[in-house]
Amino acid sequence: MQSLRVALGERTYPIHVGAEILGDASLYEPHLRGRRAAIVTNAVVAPLYLGRLRSVLSAIDASVLEITVEDGERAKRWETLDAIVGAMLKARCDRSTVVLALGGGVIGDLAGFAAAVYQRGVSFIQIPTTLLAQVDSSVGGKTGINHALGKNMIGAFHQPLAVIADVGALGTLPNRELRAGLAEVIKHALVLDTTLFAWLEAHIEALLGRDPQALTHAVMRSCELKAQVVAADEREAGRRAILNFGHTFGHAIEAGVGYGTWLHGEAVAAGMVMAAELSARAGALDPAVVARLRTLLARAGLPVEGPALAPERYLELMAIDKKAAAGRIRFVTLEAIGHAVLRDDLDAATVRATIGGCSSATAAPR
Amino acid sequence: MQSLRVALGERTYPIHVGAEILGDASLYEPHLRGRRAAIVTNAVVAPLYLGRLRSVLSAIDASVLEITVEDGERAKRWETLDAIVGAMLKARCDRSTVVLALGGGVIGDLAGFAAAVYQRGVSFIQIPTTLLAQVDSSVGGKTGINHALGKNMIGAFHQPLAVIADVGALGTLPNRELRAGLAEVIKHALVLDTTLFAWLEAHIEALLGRDPQALTHAVMRSCELKAQVVAADEREAGRRAILNFGHTFGHAIEAGVGYGTWLHGEAVAAGMVMAAELSARAGALDPAVVARLRTLLARAGLPVEGPALAPERYLELMAIDKKAAAGRIRFVTLEAIGHAVLRDDLDAATVRATIGGCSSATAAPR
Repeated sequence: MQSLRVALGERTYPIHVGAEILGDASLYEPHLRGRRAAIVTNAVVAPLYLGRLRSVLSAIDASVLEITVEDGERAKRWETLDAIVGAMLKARCDRSTVVLALGGGVIGDLAGFAAAVYQRGVSFIQIPTTLLAQVDSSVGGKTGINHALGKNMIGAFHQPLAVIADVGALGTLPNRELRAGLAEVIKHALVLDTTLFAWLEAHIEALLGRDPQALTHAVMRSCELKAQVVAADEREAGRRAILNFGHTFGHAIEAGVGYGTWLHGEAVAAGMVMAAELSARAGALDPAVVARLRTLLARAGLPVEGPALAPERYLELMAIDKKAAAGRIRFVTLEAIGHAVLRDDLDAATVRATIGGCSSATAAPR
Repeated sequence: MQSLRVALGERTYPIHVGAEILGDASLYEPHLRGRRAAIVTNAVVAPLYLGRLRSVLSAIDASVLEITVEDGERAKRWETLDAIVGAMLKARCDRSTVVLALGGGVIGDLAGFAAAVYQRGVSFIQIPTTLLAQVDSSVGGKTGINHALGKNMIGAFHQPLAVIADVGALGTLPNRELRAGLAEVIKHALVLDTTLFAWLEAHIEALLGRDPQALTHAVMRSCELKAQVVAADEREAGRRAILNFGHTFGHAIEAGVGYGTWLHGEAVAAGMVMAAELSARAGALDPAVVARLRTLLARAGLPVEGPALAPERYLELMAIDKKAAAGRIRFVTLEAIGHAVLRDDLDAATVRATIGGCSSATAAPR
């Protein structure tokens, strides 16, 4: 097991990464001994890991409330949040209760937001069981639910007490979700670290083969990189926005084809190609880097072009995105591997041409 | 006009109190020049003050989105929050938008919570138009909505950029609401300041007569007292709980008769008598103080006893209250005017006897 600390002053917390650590009582004990735990999980994850978590909690004398919600992005809505709050109120959970988010990114976002707003805020622990959640949502404190008019439009910044990322849990992850998680690892390397990017080029097969050591390194290094950025800009006022590389296009893809058709990581993969291509067309990036990115994503089994929607539709979808400042679309562009910058001076024609050149996929990823 | 600062580090903000200050552009300008403002108000307040606010905002080049919700406590529910967020998304409000809460406590709680969660948090300004909101919700950063199983069970601590408390707006306030606001002023004096308590005994008629100078003093001093407590304990971990004097009984009254039958301030008035009586029965408080409190509340036209519900029903309603820690009921008790303490060692028999002795009201206040 390896550990790192996300440095956020009084909100500093540890991330533990390793194989089969979900059942390690010593990781829960400092936060939970004698307290009430409310586990939020879903119908897919519960049969796999809930029993093990329940045992370890009862071993440290925590009383346990279990709340199981439906699987999938659709759970990130008000009705589910209301049901979680209702279950906690019925069980008379007070402000000393700790919420445990056991599952992927949806569960982390939803349970984290429930913790952020339950009686104006209780503590929570992330136990991410997907690669995407381990490398992305476990660092940064973003929580929230969707609105009919946009994803993650209702939420809060709420930091966990701890993150327990068990790479052993990735053994049960469908291939497609593993690949989608790798998209975020590749993103962290692309915008922040040439060494990790080269390591990924050398170890992509080991990762796809779920080698625990390779996964531990990828998750650990990815979290470290993201943690440095988040520590410098907790509320996403500036630099943190570079982590959204590929996301402006990615969100447009997800919304344009209907949420759930493309996985978030798949949309980010194609979105990264588009953002890199935009950087190259703007003269900021060597086209050889775009080619290297395409090759790595393709080896990881990820899409390298967006769905065949009209460029105008892409632009329309991007304008309502919450990263749009004062009506302009702000893009994260790349100048080299490990070096991303924020720009809002790109002309619409270049953006439109980039979309036209990178959006011919007629089938959804499988 | 008088001003004070609520000292909360980087979240420090000013409260301005005075007659006819709602239309003073200089109070808005530092926060809003050139920015997007989203005014949240209700159908009762809008015809009275929305026009004046709109004029002052356009004078400082702020673009204005107006969102009018239904009047009353019922607005503090998910559907209204969803509608506010939807209106802001449709208007493409980004993270630089400032929400303006124009109305009473319900609007402050609701609009403040909408600001807390819109795209994970935007700024807001409180423009309280009721006495209760001016002396209570404008200090402390509590925002939120109700759950079917309990009031204010979903919320956030979110501090405003500024509070603009126009006592001129109290001219249109119904008598009953004015009195309910005075209950909170009396509470602040009772638990924190003998001088203010004596001043209230001398000026209660001037306040009921809506004398602007008396109202400015009462609001200002009340906010100052609350601000000192909140500055020392922003997240209500300890001392801040003394501001809940009378609230454990008060919430039980509100819930027991059905929310809206008694106003919050009316329930708190009767709740304060019960909490003072409990303190006296526990031997901690001179019964003469209870008598003095009853007299002042009665002169203010406020109820001095709770509704005639069975003591067991009161106890049941109090146990689910969010101030219940680990199953015990924690009470704020009084030892003298200006000196409140938190206790959880009172025996159930004394609590039951207190309820029995103070709950014979058979009609709701009018």
